Amino acid sequence: MRETYHEELDQVVNDLVTMTASVRVAVADATRALLDADLRVAERVIADDSRLDAMHTELEERCFTLLARQAPVAGELRTIVAALRMVFELARMGDLAAHVAKIARLRYPEHAVPDTLVASFSRMARLADEMIASAGRTLHERNVDEATALAENDEEMDELRRDQFRVLLSDEWAHGVEKAVDAALLGRYYERIADHAVAMGRRIIYVITGEAPQGEQWPA
Amino acid sequence: MRETYHEELDQVVNDLVTMTASVRVAVADATRALLDADLRVAERVIADDSRLDAMHTELEERCFTLLARQAPVAGELRTIVAALRMVFELARMGDLAAHVAKIARLRYPEHAVPDTLVASFSRMARLADEMIASAGRTLHERNVDEATALAENDEEMDELRRDQFRVLLSDEWAHGVEKAVDAALLGRYYERIADHAVAMGRRIIYVITGEAPQGEQWPA
Repeated sequence: MRETYHEELDQVVNDLVTMTASVRVAVADATRALLDADLRVAERVIADDSRLDAMHTELEERCFTLLARQAPVAGELRTIVAALRMVFELARMGDLAAHVAKIARLRYPEHAVPDTLVASFSRMARLADEMIASAGRTLHERNVDEATALAENDEEMDELRRDQFRVLLSDEWAHGVEKAVDAALLGRYYERIADHAVAMGRRIIYVITGEAPQGEQWPA
Repeated sequence: MRETYHEELDQVVNDLVTMTASVRVAVADATRALLDADLRVAERVIADDSRLDAMHTELEERCFTLLARQAPVAGELRTIVAALRMVFELARMGDLAAHVAKIARLRYPEHAVPDTLVASFSRMARLADEMIASAGRTLHERNVDEATALAENDEEMDELRRDQFRVLLSDEWAHGVEKAVDAALLGRYYERIADHAVAMGRRIIYVITGEAPQGEQWPA
């Protein structure tokens, strides 16, 4: 019985790690849909989001069952409580990837992002991908140093966002209101994906050390 | 011991209800700061957000302690698992109110919202307030009908957001890129506040009926 329990608990963590891989695919595909104005890929990201939502529901139920049947304490209880939050963070990243894909679909066959911001959004997407990958690896390896680095390391995302605002609010902006609004919202979605990865980093520190995350201080 | 435990559990729920009242104040004040271009109020909303973050941390710790010490099952376990999520939803609403206040502060002494959108943002804020109030009442009274209504009833918020996009992307828009970008982000923040109230409604249904929320399907 206890062995099954530990297997089930390990499986919850493994499934969260698998979910990070699915989220990376969603974000990468959404970015491709956006920057290549690829309608087919956009539709796929939007359709596949329901799978992440289903994983969310299913993993939550398994966590609940573990709590009900096993009355875990200490590190195991922390793992399950953190898993309940992390599965939400991952599902939200998937929703945000779908939001990116929806803007790509809305503007198709045009490109939503003007040339002048393509490099910036590419960099945002790569950074988000690195952060989600780091969250998955950190969770798998229980690596507190990498989790700490992740939790402290989204300044570059914030800086990219500030740069984007400087570009789209400057007098030289020649792409009109619609593209500026799209860019502002897209920047918000990538920034939020990074925020969720940071929050995962904090939860992983909590699992490993028992140190509670102090508030969820999000960047503005 | 069991009596203390039930008192502690009731107190967690009561504190969540109290937190909804604090969030209502934050959203109302942020809206006042925004629509009146009131810097003093904006600064207060931004400063007070740390109190909601502290309540988040503190309530989470109490939920964790209840799980560790009491090994709750059935309805009590559902209450605590739901509380862990709801305290997050409420803290996020507070963060979003602070985001609104930060845009008010950034544009001060100008008004961030042009006259043509003031009525729309007023209505969004009133609607958000009603939804948060409903979440608090529903939680306090364990009212499954009102929770269901809340979970199904943010179409008006979505409609207001679509109207705002129609206005700010129309050829008649005379307020430039910056105000359009501000309005798009502000609309997003109010919409997200409403989403979090909807999510609370779903969690309350789960507490009362044991019926798990099926995915977190957010409006686009």
